[in-house]
Amino acid sequence: MDKWLIGIDLGGTTTKLAFLTEEGFILRKWEIPTDITNNGERIVPNITYSLQEKLAEMNQTKKNVLGIGIGAPGAIDHENGIVFEAVNLGWKEGYALKENLAKAVGLPVILDNDANCAALGEMWTGAGKGAKDLICVTLGTGVGGGIITNGQVVHGIKGAGGEIGHMTIDPFEGYQCNCGKRGCLETVASATGIVRIAKDQLSSFNKASVLKTIMINEREISAKDVFDAMRAGDELAREIVNRFAFYLGLAIANLGNVLNPEAIIIGGGVSKAGDTLLNPVKKYFSAFTFSTVRESSHVSIASLGNDAGVVGAAWLVQHSSW
Amino acid sequence: MDKWLIGIDLGGTTTKLAFLTEEGFILRKWEIPTDITNNGERIVPNITYSLQEKLAEMNQTKKNVLGIGIGAPGAIDHENGIVFEAVNLGWKEGYALKENLAKAVGLPVILDNDANCAALGEMWTGAGKGAKDLICVTLGTGVGGGIITNGQVVHGIKGAGGEIGHMTIDPFEGYQCNCGKRGCLETVASATGIVRIAKDQLSSFNKASVLKTIMINEREISAKDVFDAMRAGDELAREIVNRFAFYLGLAIANLGNVLNPEAIIIGGGVSKAGDTLLNPVKKYFSAFTFSTVRESSHVSIASLGNDAGVVGAAWLVQHSSW
Repeated sequence: MDKWLIGIDLGGTTTKLAFLTEEGFILRKWEIPTDITNNGERIVPNITYSLQEKLAEMNQTKKNVLGIGIGAPGAIDHENGIVFEAVNLGWKEGYALKENLAKAVGLPVILDNDANCAALGEMWTGAGKGAKDLICVTLGTGVGGGIITNGQVVHGIKGAGGEIGHMTIDPFEGYQCNCGKRGCLETVASATGIVRIAKDQLSSFNKASVLKTIMINEREISAKDVFDAMRAGDELAREIVNRFAFYLGLAIANLGNVLNPEAIIIGGGVSKAGDTLLNPVKKYFSAFTFSTVRESSHVSIASLGNDAGVVGAAWLVQHSSW
Repeated sequence: MDKWLIGIDLGGTTTKLAFLTEEGFILRKWEIPTDITNNGERIVPNITYSLQEKLAEMNQTKKNVLGIGIGAPGAIDHENGIVFEAVNLGWKEGYALKENLAKAVGLPVILDNDANCAALGEMWTGAGKGAKDLICVTLGTGVGGGIITNGQVVHGIKGAGGEIGHMTIDPFEGYQCNCGKRGCLETVASATGIVRIAKDQLSSFNKASVLKTIMINEREISAKDVFDAMRAGDELAREIVNRFAFYLGLAIANLGNVLNPEAIIIGGGVSKAGDTLLNPVKKYFSAFTFSTVRESSHVSIASLGNDAGVVGAAWLVQHSSW
């Protein structure tokens, strides 16, 4: 019988866990809350307990498991299995996640950045299935990314590879980013970025608009409100989405121009807008790529949803030299 | 005794050839004119004859040669050894260079794009020695590029990987590029691009300038004239170089932001301007990168000059599964 793989997607509020086959099929998936109290000291014990419990429930032992792949947010030293900046997880700088989890569970562990895991997941069984060159952009509260070339994750010299959210996309009048510089893609193409554009466009928009009425009279809006309004024909929403699509389209076009990947995949919560988001982004992608790339690099929406992280983490188990 | 490697850099006017050791040391290098008449039918026979002649001259036989690496301009199918678009070489579309040269010389041949070979050369024995993640931008008549991640060239799905010159760097008012779109890096950061900027800036520059006098009274200027004038303190030249540096700095900053390479190397004829070019480019690189990348990805001038192509082509010989 084939051995199982364990994939874990460690987030600031929830930890997703899954057992998978060696072909990437999810046998069982579940979530536990991430307890970040006391400098995150419960994170590894909680994962360990949950894994043992689920294995017992399924009448399995860890002897039948090949290993654990885990994705964590922020800066990672994937070779040594260290999580550097983990403000969201409570850990002090330089937490030895790989070593601690391996010791606790008694299985080999491989660690990578969560956005890289999502890209690997989409490459293995998702929208980029079979591609060896692939870019995955994750549009959530921020903008994350994973870049795969020649079948391998691009980590770069200090683990910053794939930080698509910090491409400087507006070098002139860009918004201030948390990273310290201005004009980052994340300031305009994330869920918060879209709302920021909306507030900006509002003042110069003089026509009637359902979205405008909501923004003025009722409450804070969300990125979803903008895409819903666009789908309903709202002109202000169209202008907002158009500006968002210009920035995102320009960014992925330039990634396409230099990397010519088979697949450029847009994932994360914002990507649930589907074609309402994809079509305008594709328009700008076409405008800003040269012919070979325009014709051979395909832009699409991610297909694994929230499972991408655990699938990609599990992929690492079979592709690592521990 | 170690075997020799042959590196060839095939250009539209000259073909550079070299014998190298397995450590990348050039034992002998020479050039022959590239005869592109009759649809380029003399190219392979001329290379073959020249190699045989030089081997005999050095009392060597091809038994002591491991193989031939060759870089060619334009679009390449490196897996099958085909040169697709070779207008400059006279070949009709889809020339089987690898097969034809291997048959003629009687040695295994490996082919890649010339800009990729230059990047591999700088990685092996040049300014990026030892790096596994490296970007090489070649500023000549056009702007070429080679991207190496995890020690391998990024070819992409259709061989367009590394086409840094076609990043859309001015999405609003960019100059028309030969590739069909507007605002490509090549339109402003190549030798011709710098002259284009110079002509543009001239009309709005109302002060005294040596460069302005030359441009108005005497003759066409070159990129070298601009850098020379800047070095001599000319203010118009400073404005031109500043605009050039803004575009190039922004482009390599965004490559740095997403790939976080150890080395970003600027080569090609224009790079002979040295620090006059490098310093302003570094200024914009710093402005447009986030801290991790700013601190870990280093920008420098290429060190192999015209030898980069033959060195990188020779590197391929030892790193290919023929």
